[in-house]
Amino acid sequence: MEMKMGSFRGHAIPGSFFYFMGLWWSTKHILKYACKKYKRSCHFKSKASFCRTDLLEGIIMISMALFGMTVEQFVPEGPYLTLYDYKEGHWKQLTSWHHGTMYFFFGLAGVTRILCHIYRSLPGSLPKLMLSNAFFVEAFIFYNHTHGRDVLDIYVHQLLSLVILVTAVLTFIDFMRSNMILALLEASFLLLQGSWFWQIGFVLYPLNGGPAWESTDHNNMMFLTICFCWHYAVSLTVIGLNFAFVTWLVKSKLKRFCPTEVGLLKTAEREQESEEEM
Amino acid sequence: MEMKMGSFRGHAIPGSFFYFMGLWWSTKHILKYACKKYKRSCHFKSKASFCRTDLLEGIIMISMALFGMTVEQFVPEGPYLTLYDYKEGHWKQLTSWHHGTMYFFFGLAGVTRILCHIYRSLPGSLPKLMLSNAFFVEAFIFYNHTHGRDVLDIYVHQLLSLVILVTAVLTFIDFMRSNMILALLEASFLLLQGSWFWQIGFVLYPLNGGPAWESTDHNNMMFLTICFCWHYAVSLTVIGLNFAFVTWLVKSKLKRFCPTEVGLLKTAEREQESEEEM
Amino acid sequence: MEMKMGSFRGHAIPGSFFYFMGLWWSTKHILKYACKKYKRSCHFKSKASFCRTDLLEGIIMISMALFGMTVEQFVPEGPYLTLYDYKEGHWKQLTSWHHGTMYFFFGLAGVTRILCHIYRSLPGSLPKLMLSNAFFVEAFIFYNHTHGRDVLDIYVHQLLSLVILVTAVLTFIDFMRSNMILALLEASFLLLQGSWFWQIGFVLYPLNGGPAWESTDHNNMMFLTICFCWHYAVSLTVIGLNFAFVTWLVKSKLKRFCPTEVGLLKTAEREQESEEEM
Amino acid sequence: MEMKMGSFRGHAIPGSFFYFMGLWWSTKHILKYACKKYKRSCHFKSKASFCRTDLLEGIIMISMALFGMTVEQFVPEGPYLTLYDYKEGHWKQLTSWHHGTMYFFFGLAGVTRILCHIYRSLPGSLPKLMLSNAFFVEAFIFYNHTHGRDVLDIYVHQLLSLVILVTAVLTFIDFMRSNMILALLEASFLLLQGSWFWQIGFVLYPLNGGPAWESTDHNNMMFLTICFCWHYAVSLTVIGLNFAFVTWLVKSKLKRFCPTEVGLLKTAEREQESEEEM
Repeated sequence: MEMKMGSFRGHAIPGSFFYFMGLWWSTKHILKYACKKYKRSCHFKSKASFCRTDLLEGIIMISMALFGMTVEQFVPEGPYLTLYDYKEGHWKQLTSWHHGTMYFFFGLAGVTRILCHIYRSLPGSLPKLMLSNAFFVEAFIFYNHTHGRDVLDIYVHQLLSLVILVTAVLTFIDFMRSNMILALLEASFLLLQGSWFWQIGFVLYPLNGGPAWESTDHNNMMFLTICFCWHYAVSLTVIGLNFAFVTWLVKSKLKRFCPTEVGLLKTAEREQESEEEM
Repeated sequence: MEMKMGSFRGHAIPGSFFYFMGLWWSTKHILKYACKKYKRSCHFKSKASFCRTDLLEGIIMISMALFGMTVEQFVPEGPYLTLYDYKEGHWKQLTSWHHGTMYFFFGLAGVTRILCHIYRSLPGSLPKLMLSNAFFVEAFIFYNHTHGRDVLDIYVHQLLSLVILVTAVLTFIDFMRSNMILALLEASFLLLQGSWFWQIGFVLYPLNGGPAWESTDHNNMMFLTICFCWHYAVSLTVIGLNFAFVTWLVKSKLKRFCPTEVGLLKTAEREQESEEEM
Repeated sequence: MEMKMGSFRGHAIPGSFFYFMGLWWSTKHILKYACKKYKRSCHFKSKASFCRTDLLEGIIMISMALFGMTVEQFVPEGPYLTLYDYKEGHWKQLTSWHHGTMYFFFGLAGVTRILCHIYRSLPGSLPKLMLSNAFFVEAFIFYNHTHGRDVLDIYVHQLLSLVILVTAVLTFIDFMRSNMILALLEASFLLLQGSWFWQIGFVLYPLNGGPAWESTDHNNMMFLTICFCWHYAVSLTVIGLNFAFVTWLVKSKLKRFCPTEVGLLKTAEREQESEEEM
Repeated sequence: MEMKMGSFRGHAIPGSFFYFMGLWWSTKHILKYACKKYKRSCHFKSKASFCRTDLLEGIIMISMALFGMTVEQFVPEGPYLTLYDYKEGHWKQLTSWHHGTMYFFFGLAGVTRILCHIYRSLPGSLPKLMLSNAFFVEAFIFYNHTHGRDVLDIYVHQLLSLVILVTAVLTFIDFMRSNMILALLEASFLLLQGSWFWQIGFVLYPLNGGPAWESTDHNNMMFLTICFCWHYAVSLTVIGLNFAFVTWLVKSKLKRFCPTEVGLLKTAEREQESEEEM
């Protein structure tokens, strides 16, 4: 039972982290988009504040990574920083070390973000590349996370690996050629990753103490396939609602401060322009 | 026999939908290309009408999706909106739910198309991305549609999944960098997808009541491989004939309204130009 | 023995075709490059002649395709245009139909080339796309050419499929963004494909009447792996020698006709320029 | 024991070569970046010296390739240039021939580099393409290096093949579109490749004479997965330290020679610019 709680927690913590990151990044990109669209009328000091945001993001990513690594090592059944049990002659809790390695690369991406904020001589797109890198490493780890396990276990982790790989590729494309919609798509895959982590927890380590799902039933896999799609549909809906809400907020705030000019800008051509600029 | 009819219908309906969509999109893109080429002499109000087309397309896509979902749920042997049969302890008609999920994402793409038509603040290339998304989800679903089935069944669905994946990738490239020929290629793959859906129906659920094809005969697979290529050859031919027909139509119509100027435009350089613009 | 001769011929004919195509295309692209580099001093009527070349290429491709299809159908052991043997209840000579389908798509690419030459209203990059298409179809066919055969047979065809897939992807990239070096690389893969077809013939159907190579010996596969690389090295060398020869030819011909100006052009910057233009 | 030493050496030599190449290329690209950033104040004769570097690199690559090929052939247990042992009827030391083929393509890339340095009529981006080519060939060889071996042996070579493939793809992207950060990323993968070669040596042919790792233990594979990630983390750290060191060096050297102007250049906009130029 204790073991189960630990394994559930091991999926719930990264799940929550990634869901939070997805929500935050989608909000940030929508804000940027909305601010840019209306910037010609009312220039908020948005550039400076987005800059400060980078610093904050870096610190949050490092904190999350450190928290995750500590929890993985020092829970009751954890490896306590030992890698090999020489007495009994086997590796110690390698899944915890897997999760820890994953956190480490996100921490590294956070460090890069802060360094690029402080030292202007570093290339500006480096943090994006390191983030893409962290996702590639995560996809690699989860793809190789299930040597010698059950079919169902392997399948849910393969789906996880798939969504992480897609996120990594999208981040890489975003690094090569910045694009607002791609960034939102990337955020939607982050949300999917977050909620799928939770789903894996519920499937493999049910909290009510019941047994895990039948591992050899093909129908379970058929169901998890569409379940995955439904998670994705929810992610897209969340991004859509977030877009509507943030755009409405920016608009209404603009109306209060500089009400006369907003209307003048609503020509399709100018908006097209501002989209391409991003 | 009833079961067979249902399963055949489950492949015939999306097959017809995709074939129709392929035909329509190829026509639209050829029309756009032909109109653009001759636009300097005679400016039809094409931009406005293409805009209205977007709205209509959105409505058609949503109707198709709703129709498909309803049929899948409420045919005699359907799941009637229940997901799990608690009495007998197994999932209910998961293939119907699979098809329904697939329709849902195309419906979502339709909704996005309408929203982008109404709210100009939404980025203009969003509908293309959502369509590419819907194809990726469909490819994913059909790739995981055949857990625990026969070799032949798996093979025909893998081919289906392959053509859908190619369509999704082409739509994504088209989203990143608009290109008329790629759009036509995409339409040809839609036609292939449509006709292949029908072929799957005929292979697995023969209408004459005979047995399905021998599932373990390697020669059947060898034949289906080239059969797939022949379907593709037919699709390309259909696109080619469509191109010839629409171009001839636009030209002859132009000649009637503004006959003198068409000839002047027929220099290769100018045409090269107009192709690159698209 | 008769069977063996037929099968050997089935690999020798496309092998020779592709080798010839690779040689010809590399020569054409090097000629174009060399002519472009020196064009400012001496303008040959190269554009018109390259145009006529397109027409010739189309005719050659169609002839090759027709020849290949005829041979595959009407050799003594061929299917003679029948697809299914209803008496004995099995498919007839599906490998011949496979090869025939492959030829058909190259014929289609040839037809497109001619149509684009005649009708200027067709987009100019269409032939490249159709060629890329033909390679993709060929890769697909050879990947599914070996259902139920031996390990060695599957392996040599997989390698063939790999080189065709690479050629298809390179042609597609070339279609999206024209680049002389990529076109040469593509030609080198065509040479590799051609010589590998011959190699397959020698491995599976030895002409001296001896038995085919031991199908289950891992060392044979280890050897074929490097043998494939050596074929590739030879292809690259052939392209390199061709480059040296054609460049020398163009240069010496230029010296004869307009000897004084060549020297003036030999600044690195100008050459850099002309490379990027292509 | 002798055999083991040979096999260990077979992995240690390329490992050292690639590690050295990774270190050198990262240094070169950082130097170029730093020099470019400060070039407006103090123009060192950097272009000419980078040119001479190309020549030197070519010579080093050819020497390494020749050295590697010679060692592989003429060590005591090597094949001594014979490919097939006709007496005993089996292939001779095919792994040595595999390694030799790999070296050959890097030698070819070196030759191209020198030819492009001498003959200005050759396209300037050719050496990059040939290098990418050499990596693709290497990835192909190592992917097919383990027919009929143990699971663990296959797994470590698959990881090696993965990192080489990524390097090849990055080099190809770099060829299509030059980018300083990508070049550094590529260098980090070269370092990873180098250190992973050493790791393979230690896993499969332990120097202390002990047995190789247990080949069927899933935990060994789980460990090697994260071990691979740690190697990568070390590579990234090495690149980071190298960046800090070289940038500091260039800056301090600049301060000594032309101290007043450096400060004036430290505006973010100009740096952004110089990054994009590369």
